[in-house]
Amino acid sequence: MKDIFASANQEWLNEPRIVLGIMTGTSVDSVDLAVARFRRNKSGKISMRVLASGEYPVDEELRQDISRVVSLDAGADYISGLNSRLANLYRDAIENFLDKRKNIDIDAIGIHGQTVWHDPDACYYPFPSTLQIASASMLSAYLQKPVVSDFRSADIALGGQGAPLVPIFDYEYFSEKYADVCMLNIGGIANITWLQDGGDIDDIIAFDTGPGNTLIDYFMNLYYGKKFDRNGKIALSGKIIPELLEKLLKLEYFARPYPKSTGREYFNPKLIFDIWPRWKSERPEDMINTLTMLTAESIALGIKKLPAEPNFIYASGGGAKNKFIMEHLDIEIFHAGLESTRKKSISADAKEALCFAYLAYRTLGGLPGNVPAVTGAYSEVVLGSISYNNIYKPRA
Amino acid sequence: MKDIFASANQEWLNEPRIVLGIMTGTSVDSVDLAVARFRRNKSGKISMRVLASGEYPVDEELRQDISRVVSLDAGADYISGLNSRLANLYRDAIENFLDKRKNIDIDAIGIHGQTVWHDPDACYYPFPSTLQIASASMLSAYLQKPVVSDFRSADIALGGQGAPLVPIFDYEYFSEKYADVCMLNIGGIANITWLQDGGDIDDIIAFDTGPGNTLIDYFMNLYYGKKFDRNGKIALSGKIIPELLEKLLKLEYFARPYPKSTGREYFNPKLIFDIWPRWKSERPEDMINTLTMLTAESIALGIKKLPAEPNFIYASGGGAKNKFIMEHLDIEIFHAGLESTRKKSISADAKEALCFAYLAYRTLGGLPGNVPAVTGAYSEVVLGSISYNNIYKPRA
Repeated sequence: MKDIFASANQEWLNEPRIVLGIMTGTSVDSVDLAVARFRRNKSGKISMRVLASGEYPVDEELRQDISRVVSLDAGADYISGLNSRLANLYRDAIENFLDKRKNIDIDAIGIHGQTVWHDPDACYYPFPSTLQIASASMLSAYLQKPVVSDFRSADIALGGQGAPLVPIFDYEYFSEKYADVCMLNIGGIANITWLQDGGDIDDIIAFDTGPGNTLIDYFMNLYYGKKFDRNGKIALSGKIIPELLEKLLKLEYFARPYPKSTGREYFNPKLIFDIWPRWKSERPEDMINTLTMLTAESIALGIKKLPAEPNFIYASGGGAKNKFIMEHLDIEIFHAGLESTRKKSISADAKEALCFAYLAYRTLGGLPGNVPAVTGAYSEVVLGSISYNNIYKPRA
Repeated sequence: MKDIFASANQEWLNEPRIVLGIMTGTSVDSVDLAVARFRRNKSGKISMRVLASGEYPVDEELRQDISRVVSLDAGADYISGLNSRLANLYRDAIENFLDKRKNIDIDAIGIHGQTVWHDPDACYYPFPSTLQIASASMLSAYLQKPVVSDFRSADIALGGQGAPLVPIFDYEYFSEKYADVCMLNIGGIANITWLQDGGDIDDIIAFDTGPGNTLIDYFMNLYYGKKFDRNGKIALSGKIIPELLEKLLKLEYFARPYPKSTGREYFNPKLIFDIWPRWKSERPEDMINTLTMLTAESIALGIKKLPAEPNFIYASGGGAKNKFIMEHLDIEIFHAGLESTRKKSISADAKEALCFAYLAYRTLGGLPGNVPAVTGAYSEVVLGSISYNNIYKPRA
């Protein structure tokens, strides 16, 4: 029998497609949305035209529920409930977004989902796994569009880390012929992608450098009741706690060779409480300064491990707006031009959402989305699951 | 733009397809597998030829982990880990099953998954939801076949109970022109489907009658360290505790009008401990007798609520082998012929697995799978998500 699913979906790939991507990062500050038109040319290159991007607020109650799940303080009732609640949030976010942009008619949606667990090395349970929630089937039933979700599991099934997934996107849209480029994304966790001057996709190096905003945000909330340190202002007002920074930089993760990935399972407040039991007697601004320095220093450490110092660093994610981090990096990696991805017409906030629109486009076209050289998987694989829960259909 | 996903998938429907279904019920005793060839004729009727069925053992450690998750005694780490572990179990089960049947070449797989939470009425969290785990994406990456999963969410998104889903299958394969038929499945929970003499699909009545084996199994394990009461032998050796049975039968669920669905979130040991604080002083066989009587009586109550006494009752599920339940039902509903579904060439054990093979066939064909008249959803909808995580593909 002919396997009708086993080849690239030419019908999908033959026409330009408009795909909306949604990203909710580990820091859960907001839902990022972006829409682009993708068009595959004969050489296989996929052109992207960004049509719009924006964000949608996440309310405090939802943030707290997610936090309970991530900190293992809630069970199946909450996870199941949140799976539904997030589908409702995404529906509201998309409807709100498209209501203001009546000229955009999307073909499909790609959702990263909310990561509540990521354990590709089976450190916490004897089977490697990852879990991103937000019910794709419910979202599809609500919006009557195909929804692609769960992008990380297939790579983990093939022995990979299920992360990072952004490299194929970075390679397609940021690599240059005559320059070494380093992409830097500072979300809850920070990661880099190395795109060698004229290199092939298999030459990509990409890994999580360590914490991005996750620790800073936690302590900002604890001390100041704020979601994050706007522009790095609090960090700039504090002083470093050298002994704490030293202890943190000695964590095994930073020394480990790439490829590697991490998450809030590891870089969380408990780690700080354990390493620095007297944290309560420190000045808040000094804790924020030190944790921000940890992010900057660990990113710099990561970049220094690359085969060469990059010519350009393009930064994205919330942390790219933190002046303390950016200024410190600019000093540490002083030969490289450090810019926002906006320089390349892709806003720092929208980049990850666009990446999942692009990955959804690939999945619907039957094209693989992982880069085995960076995830460690033994093969390229089509990522994700497709939900298309049509209503009003004639019954067979 | 032409919506390439919005119509029935003729390419899939035009040829006979061989689909494997997997069911793991709430009682988690084993994985049930069944394979059938489906063929849609011009009238829209889908013929089914059962090719094979079997089961695969679930080890005690896995049962305990599932039990921890279901009883809300575990968090995201366990749920994520179990999601992966169950995909591995299903892979092993399918490989073992197909290794012995080399002549069977399957086109796709349908998995119900392990229900860890089902709250369509938002009783436990402010958003209605259901959660079946076993990573479909991992399973697809392992076996290189399309896997359809998460059959209940879309119906819930449209205001339905996400259950029961078996009616469309019962209607297709068990309804008769000159007899009223009642399908009875006794798994962890018991449910019935009413197929009226020559009736239309919208005339179907189906609902959960209440507990199936879940309470019996729990106490069998507690008292005797056994998974279930084989043939109802222990129940037959005990005596009823009339006051306890009376209290149980007064539970609001039994009086509630259909459509209705329930789960182990409600019918669990805690309910018994609360209703009957002195359960510890009862004789074990009397507790088993009374709980078995509860199952039989509540099923009889359910059947008596139907528009007419059925001509035939076809029973399936583990509880259909419990003589105590069957004999009691035969007396209570004495005009109806009570038979195993085997009478209609579908083994009682394989029926639910076949149902999910059938539902997967429908989803891959772009056909709806729910019956709004029984789930309460406001529309028919294509159910589930499709994972097809191909490897060894040429990169675009």
